[in-house]
Amino acid sequence: MSKMLDEIRQQPAALDKTLRSESKGIEALRARFATRRPSFIILAARGTSDNAAQFGRYLLEIATGIPVSLAAPSIFTLYGARVDYKDALVVAISQSGESTDTNLVLERAKECGAMTIGVTNEASSALAKLADHVILVRAGGEKSVAATKTYTGQLLAIYLLAYALGAPVSLEELRAMPAVVEGALSLESEIREKASRYRFMENAVVVGRGLNYANAFEWALKMMETCYVVAERFSSADFLHGPIAMVEQSFPVFLFAPAGVTWPSIREMIARVHSLHAETLIITDQSNREATGLETTRSITIPTKLHRKSAVPEELYTPLPYIVPAQIFAACLAAEKGLNPDQPRALEKVTRTL
Amino acid sequence: MSKMLDEIRQQPAALDKTLRSESKGIEALRARFATRRPSFIILAARGTSDNAAQFGRYLLEIATGIPVSLAAPSIFTLYGARVDYKDALVVAISQSGESTDTNLVLERAKECGAMTIGVTNEASSALAKLADHVILVRAGGEKSVAATKTYTGQLLAIYLLAYALGAPVSLEELRAMPAVVEGALSLESEIREKASRYRFMENAVVVGRGLNYANAFEWALKMMETCYVVAERFSSADFLHGPIAMVEQSFPVFLFAPAGVTWPSIREMIARVHSLHAETLIITDQSNREATGLETTRSITIPTKLHRKSAVPEELYTPLPYIVPAQIFAACLAAEKGLNPDQPRALEKVTRTL
Repeated sequence: MSKMLDEIRQQPAALDKTLRSESKGIEALRARFATRRPSFIILAARGTSDNAAQFGRYLLEIATGIPVSLAAPSIFTLYGARVDYKDALVVAISQSGESTDTNLVLERAKECGAMTIGVTNEASSALAKLADHVILVRAGGEKSVAATKTYTGQLLAIYLLAYALGAPVSLEELRAMPAVVEGALSLESEIREKASRYRFMENAVVVGRGLNYANAFEWALKMMETCYVVAERFSSADFLHGPIAMVEQSFPVFLFAPAGVTWPSIREMIARVHSLHAETLIITDQSNREATGLETTRSITIPTKLHRKSAVPEELYTPLPYIVPAQIFAACLAAEKGLNPDQPRALEKVTRTL
Repeated sequence: MSKMLDEIRQQPAALDKTLRSESKGIEALRARFATRRPSFIILAARGTSDNAAQFGRYLLEIATGIPVSLAAPSIFTLYGARVDYKDALVVAISQSGESTDTNLVLERAKECGAMTIGVTNEASSALAKLADHVILVRAGGEKSVAATKTYTGQLLAIYLLAYALGAPVSLEELRAMPAVVEGALSLESEIREKASRYRFMENAVVVGRGLNYANAFEWALKMMETCYVVAERFSSADFLHGPIAMVEQSFPVFLFAPAGVTWPSIREMIARVHSLHAETLIITDQSNREATGLETTRSITIPTKLHRKSAVPEELYTPLPYIVPAQIFAACLAAEKGLNPDQPRALEKVTRTL
């Protein structure tokens, strides 16, 4: 078994540990934000962590109403620009905490007087030392080059940050997440069987929208780095603005299809892609009865019905369990293609960029 | 000849017209910003216009020091979120000015008391009526579905906006742009010959960095919509964080390679891709002597040496001429593949999304 698959399976325990260890610090942070609310939020990251940042870009703006921007590190590292971050909250996300460029964004932000937060898996990293406050992802050492448990740990950290900023994120719902993720893990053998169909797939498109847009980036990245598939990623809206032209008969389109506000546009996209004689595979859950009833669509259905205890829409919590079948799919497809997902060609675990 | 190629050739005249017509309005805007400087800037767009916004994200932040964010329209259209744009400048960019979702972002921004600007090719559009100030792209009617002259017009509008915000952007350098673009157009027959090599190309990667990152998105989009090539787009930094694993022998990598601060990372990327036995095609200009001296690299070299009259780095002005050979390449490759770039399958000129 690959380390990647082993680490995918560790996710419920890792999420549970992070939740338990961080709850006290998050309450302290919440008290601090109650007296000083940032005017805007900047998220800085690379690779898989940047996909987690993309999720944060949606969650934080939707749930807090504070404008959010994804940092472009080269503006500091290459252009040496001075950007006015005085009233900002600047958050760097890095598994290793040793990403020189995102750490530089944080340094510049501190010089402006911005408040800084580091989200990292390494308590003794440069990032952890640099940031005013650290949200520690307690996923344990990640051995596979393909990040999985640190990604879901980062998503959880962003939910906690939203909570600290006063957003209607329920800690009770988050405490249910390890069990929901466990439900997604139970699909492993079914997903392995489904993955074999794609043994000779060379191109793919992954589509997600809103809170699951980041997951489209992450699924595509996992397929690129572990399966060497040329996987494009789009929101369903952007996809219609040009790229849909490249879809041919049998072109595979993978979609995240939770119930909720994004479903009508995803349903429309599925119909559009089918009219072009391409095929789709969706990740959905039992609460999306309409999706599970689509006979012409291949699907992976997460068994645990996401519960609706709080007033917030349940779609808010789908990104965490929804990425899990995608991770398993990539690990199984890599194995099917005879590749080692733990050590992709041309990659190392910590990538240093300037 | 395709309408696309015809419209590509109209760019020097279109840029010249926009410059002449907009200069007075821009000075008025500059006076207005001198008394009220925004705390941050939001750019809202879709498709090709969103690639222009991506350029704005870099240029405006580098040249003004004001933080910039790309809006995610679904946060308003699907999630109905209220985002606090009170101190923001919100800019919507749309060729037709009839994009319902980006117009909705502008409406919400106005309700918050934000200042709004519309960049559009249509003086009587909904966007032009809605925005506090309009920067009119005077490209003339664009008949091809593949946007070209409106993209460069939008880039020019963003330079003008940067100038209005007090950035060290030189109107004199901008006035030289039509001639520089003319120089790029002179390469048409050379590019047509070069494009024939890629007749059977199905996948590609386009890489750009910093100010030319947006051009990587635009070249990839043009290849997707007019040539049906599965074209990925990355910054050289992000590319190293995973996606490089999919590069195989003969995998084509297209790069923007101007002289200046991004060149060392692009040069490193070229060497890295060659070590994987993949091939590269770069767009560069005569000022990048190092690039034009790389014997193992195929290149398209823009003849007009970009002049250096002002104190700002000349790389600042490369995005406008650099996209032109890429547009010609896509139009010629589409013809080579027997496709009509003016009417790609599954696309219409105005795409309405919610």
